[in-house]
Amino acid sequence: MDAEIVKDVSDIKINNGEEDVVDPWNVTSTSQEGVDYDKLIKRFGSSKVDEELMDRFQKVTGKPMHHLLKRGVFFSHRDVHSILNIVEQGKPFYLYTGRGPSSESMHVGHLVPFIFTKWLQDVFDVPLVIQLTDDEKFLWRDLTLENAKKLARENTKDIIACGFDVEKTFIFSDLTYMGRCTNFYENILRIQKCVTFNQVKGIFGFGDSDVIGKISFPAIQAAPSFSTSFPFIFGNNKIPCLIPCAIDQDPYFRMTRDVAPRLGYSKPALLHSTFIPALQGAHTKMSGSDSNTAIFLTDTPKQIKTKVNKYAFSGGQASIEEHRKLGGNTKVDISYQYLRFFLEDDDKLEEIKKSYESGAMLTGELKKTLIDVLTPIVTEHQQRRAKVTEDLVDEFMSLRPLKFKHSPHQS
Amino acid sequence: MDAEIVKDVSDIKINNGEEDVVDPWNVTSTSQEGVDYDKLIKRFGSSKVDEELMDRFQKVTGKPMHHLLKRGVFFSHRDVHSILNIVEQGKPFYLYTGRGPSSESMHVGHLVPFIFTKWLQDVFDVPLVIQLTDDEKFLWRDLTLENAKKLARENTKDIIACGFDVEKTFIFSDLTYMGRCTNFYENILRIQKCVTFNQVKGIFGFGDSDVIGKISFPAIQAAPSFSTSFPFIFGNNKIPCLIPCAIDQDPYFRMTRDVAPRLGYSKPALLHSTFIPALQGAHTKMSGSDSNTAIFLTDTPKQIKTKVNKYAFSGGQASIEEHRKLGGNTKVDISYQYLRFFLEDDDKLEEIKKSYESGAMLTGELKKTLIDVLTPIVTEHQQRRAKVTEDLVDEFMSLRPLKFKHSPHQS
Repeated sequence: MDAEIVKDVSDIKINNGEEDVVDPWNVTSTSQEGVDYDKLIKRFGSSKVDEELMDRFQKVTGKPMHHLLKRGVFFSHRDVHSILNIVEQGKPFYLYTGRGPSSESMHVGHLVPFIFTKWLQDVFDVPLVIQLTDDEKFLWRDLTLENAKKLARENTKDIIACGFDVEKTFIFSDLTYMGRCTNFYENILRIQKCVTFNQVKGIFGFGDSDVIGKISFPAIQAAPSFSTSFPFIFGNNKIPCLIPCAIDQDPYFRMTRDVAPRLGYSKPALLHSTFIPALQGAHTKMSGSDSNTAIFLTDTPKQIKTKVNKYAFSGGQASIEEHRKLGGNTKVDISYQYLRFFLEDDDKLEEIKKSYESGAMLTGELKKTLIDVLTPIVTEHQQRRAKVTEDLVDEFMSLRPLKFKHSPHQS
Repeated sequence: MDAEIVKDVSDIKINNGEEDVVDPWNVTSTSQEGVDYDKLIKRFGSSKVDEELMDRFQKVTGKPMHHLLKRGVFFSHRDVHSILNIVEQGKPFYLYTGRGPSSESMHVGHLVPFIFTKWLQDVFDVPLVIQLTDDEKFLWRDLTLENAKKLARENTKDIIACGFDVEKTFIFSDLTYMGRCTNFYENILRIQKCVTFNQVKGIFGFGDSDVIGKISFPAIQAAPSFSTSFPFIFGNNKIPCLIPCAIDQDPYFRMTRDVAPRLGYSKPALLHSTFIPALQGAHTKMSGSDSNTAIFLTDTPKQIKTKVNKYAFSGGQASIEEHRKLGGNTKVDISYQYLRFFLEDDDKLEEIKKSYESGAMLTGELKKTLIDVLTPIVTEHQQRRAKVTEDLVDEFMSLRPLKFKHSPHQS
């Protein structure tokens, strides 16, 4: 098992300066088009979300496919066919996703996994657990425990505002959940007994001067992949898990998949998303700690307009004349890239693509389209978030049975 | 800080094969007289329990000294003078000790720290917390979580049978307490954020192939040294801590003392005991996993008699004639050594020493004396243990205020 992981790792970590860097703490690319996701699939050893999987997805769910899946934002997976098999057999599975609460205001990129997860929850009608790794942020950042917990709670409000069903969704922060459910700690320990320092060194690049909290943390992100971490939802049943997440979180779940069979659990399946690029271009992703790289969920319409106009990297040509002649490059144009995430209408997106690439549409017009798409998304989010009460947060975070077909708590 | 600990460590770990080995997992000596405790004090950098400290102890408590202190069983300390200062100032402190529940039946050696701790609790009238590191045993041994928890509960009954006051004593196992009090996990994280792999490598000898659970575990043994791990007892008050324990546990608390000031806590004070030697001799200590090396708390009078007569290493001479002429050696005689732990009467012990060393007392007679001392200790323990109900265990382990002068929960 060691060898498998270590091999894995050498794939990830050997970076000659030309390769993209993708790990839970860094995402950078030397290319203006951003990370080469096909190469990443090979390096990580995952599978491409291909036509066959998309067809099956549509067939099994009987629902039209989500644009984030169709457009390759969720581009990579592990074992999603197994989950679809389970669904076909009428057996249960659950969803697990999460967030590291590093800043009070989330940006639109943070919404992407939650928008998609909500869709998955809706089409499959399955329970969902959402982890806020406030302990991780405490360990990695210059942050007090009190602030980490506060950020987790504030972020929870944004997550709830995405529209999750309180009857089917359990949201927890590590710092509060650890002290409320022994089963969670038990699974963490089981995992920590299976994974050596050598392994986390290989997978995450930890070194001898890293603090022991970081070294043992991966088990805490791994544990929610096992349904027995939530006895009030699943009883003692071992139910398979599907994790929608950004590809940079894959190392955690490669480790989890490695230990799962040794602990008698099934390996969690994964659906990986690309990153939403920074306004300045796809060399790196939107960052919650650099306000000019991102559109925040707290931004005003005016701020959104200013940021897009001022910072969104353009794939257009140097002059209008040249642009009309040569057309724009949608592969590097950030406004177009954002529309891939947030403009649901396929026809309209295709029209914009053609128009921009032909030179008919100018960068200013493309930016205006993006502003018109993003502004209502952000303002409507703000309206929904304003309605999230402290009581509702408590309800989402309370330990309770969830409503689903195979719940051990229902007759 | 790193440097200080690493220096410390090189002292401990460099062992040329002639030095005694003393760490939380191994205690061996090449000498028939056992570990050289004076050398250990120098290597660990602790202080000797000297006449001055003993005089102060007696003066401050106004009570006769415990024979385990007087006879050098608790032979080493760190900062006990500070605790005595605190007592003189009328300020509070608390006691913390623990046990790794590795076997269902404890041996008489396991009683020693608890007997002494109970005495400390009585003379100082202070609250006491007792940790059972069932998580540690799960990580280090071939043991399921279920068995580790069961052992912790069985051991708790033996600890309760030592006579602790339920109004002043909180007993907890890590596996159950972690899921019941967030403050414990918070202090663990605070410690884990301060200690690097390099440090635990130096202090505990961990290597790259050790599992991450072991690597981060020391923080779990450290956390109860900080009163804020028990808010239901101490509120938010930071109260100094005194830890009576066997000297092999010192590495955990050297680490704790290193991080304490950085976290705004006072360094825990320590009182270190020697080990109770194996029946076969002082090269090693009594072992719970080798039934012939130890007198168990479950042994019958007949088993005690047989074990002492058959295995207790003798300091006597080869023949009666020679013994009468040369006398016995109390320094290596295990029966005499055990009497130092369990025979409270100083005059009687002195008389036995003189008599055995002069050759007047033979090994058989010495062994009989030990049997007569140990048998009632063990049988009375068994009687008290039989009276410990599951309800009483639950009461000792329940999260509740304790009764003490400075309790934040009393008026």
